[in-house]
Amino acid sequence: MTRKVPVVENIFKANDQLAQANRNLLDQTRTFAINFMASPGAGKTSVILRTIEALKDKYRLAGIDGDLASTLDADRIAATGIPAVQINTGGTCHLDAVMVQNALPKIDLPNIDVFIIENVGNLICPANFALGVHINVLVASVPEGDDKPYKYPTMYRGVQALLLNKVDLLPYFDFDLDYFRKGVEALNPGLAFFPVSAKTGEGFGEWFAWLQGQIDAFLQTANG
Amino acid sequence: MTRKVPVVENIFKANDQLAQANRNLLDQTRTFAINFMASPGAGKTSVILRTIEALKDKYRLAGIDGDLASTLDADRIAATGIPAVQINTGGTCHLDAVMVQNALPKIDLPNIDVFIIENVGNLICPANFALGVHINVLVASVPEGDDKPYKYPTMYRGVQALLLNKVDLLPYFDFDLDYFRKGVEALNPGLAFFPVSAKTGEGFGEWFAWLQGQIDAFLQTANG
Repeated sequence: MTRKVPVVENIFKANDQLAQANRNLLDQTRTFAINFMASPGAGKTSVILRTIEALKDKYRLAGIDGDLASTLDADRIAATGIPAVQINTGGTCHLDAVMVQNALPKIDLPNIDVFIIENVGNLICPANFALGVHINVLVASVPEGDDKPYKYPTMYRGVQALLLNKVDLLPYFDFDLDYFRKGVEALNPGLAFFPVSAKTGEGFGEWFAWLQGQIDAFLQTANG
Repeated sequence: MTRKVPVVENIFKANDQLAQANRNLLDQTRTFAINFMASPGAGKTSVILRTIEALKDKYRLAGIDGDLASTLDADRIAATGIPAVQINTGGTCHLDAVMVQNALPKIDLPNIDVFIIENVGNLICPANFALGVHINVLVASVPEGDDKPYKYPTMYRGVQALLLNKVDLLPYFDFDLDYFRKGVEALNPGLAFFPVSAKTGEGFGEWFAWLQGQIDAFLQTANG
């Protein structure tokens, strides 16, 4: 295993360079990019669909969707009427910068304000591969349990916003919200936090308001 | 990225050789080894705790527990009174054969009948790294959604048993059991399948009976 570490470092370094190139391109085309990450089944796609519905009359949107296999999620996103591209990683546990770089030419970036990336369902690997986006968002969910910040610290450390989905299910789970928040706060103090339910719509108003603030700030700077 | 593929192949090959060495050692000491895998929050640890309670009067048990960080799960397993070892992978998304090899000397294998491994919470990476166990078990859960076999085929293809946990929550989720089963059956025909609830205990009788059949068959062969 002695050979493993330097190789992994090379991959991360090459990835970071490509991520920077993606970021430069997105900045040039004044496109705000969001990377959604989550464990399988946390409700990433449902959260994204609600977010698209809230934003699509104000901004020009596009999305790409990463999965090991299938186009189930990209199909759901395309059904909202926005341009969507599926990336099948064929076994890799995360999107990386080169996959995004290869997908970007399929999007008409100069005419897109907000570019939404749905990463592969995984709490570990995606945290290690920068894509070049402007914000990283983690969708956690009540059924996963309140101990996840303690067990998956890298993911919780690297995001700019955290949605806790499926809060409508809190009565059916032994989920200690204070314990969860304490774990998050230790890793990522002051992290923007939104308890939501993609099923009922609860809590999304705050998330939309915060996200629009981020997008508008970016577009104003980019326009200036 | 051209350099990546051969390196990954080398890692897999080296891993497979070490897994075979682990398997030989376990066979020599007549220890039946089980590798539990699942998405974060599917209830792996709860399923394992119920399994330990059911088996511990009949067999001599030990366990190891893989996590990125923390000893939360190994502490819960040790609380049952069986020897338990924590492996912290420090960021790696799976256990591999060398981690197990390094942990085995900490277990008194000649005096252990059943060795339980709890892998890192992840639906992708653990499927690619053989550990040398006798059976691989996947714990799925209702809140994850019924589309997971379609989206994570490698994991569903590589296991000898599948538990669907949290079936007590079926009334609260749009989970189509037929769609789920159809996806599983296409990938892994005839797979042993156990709908259970670690919360209520529902369905565990069938799982315990099947597992004991596997263990007894192994121990008889090993003794013969």
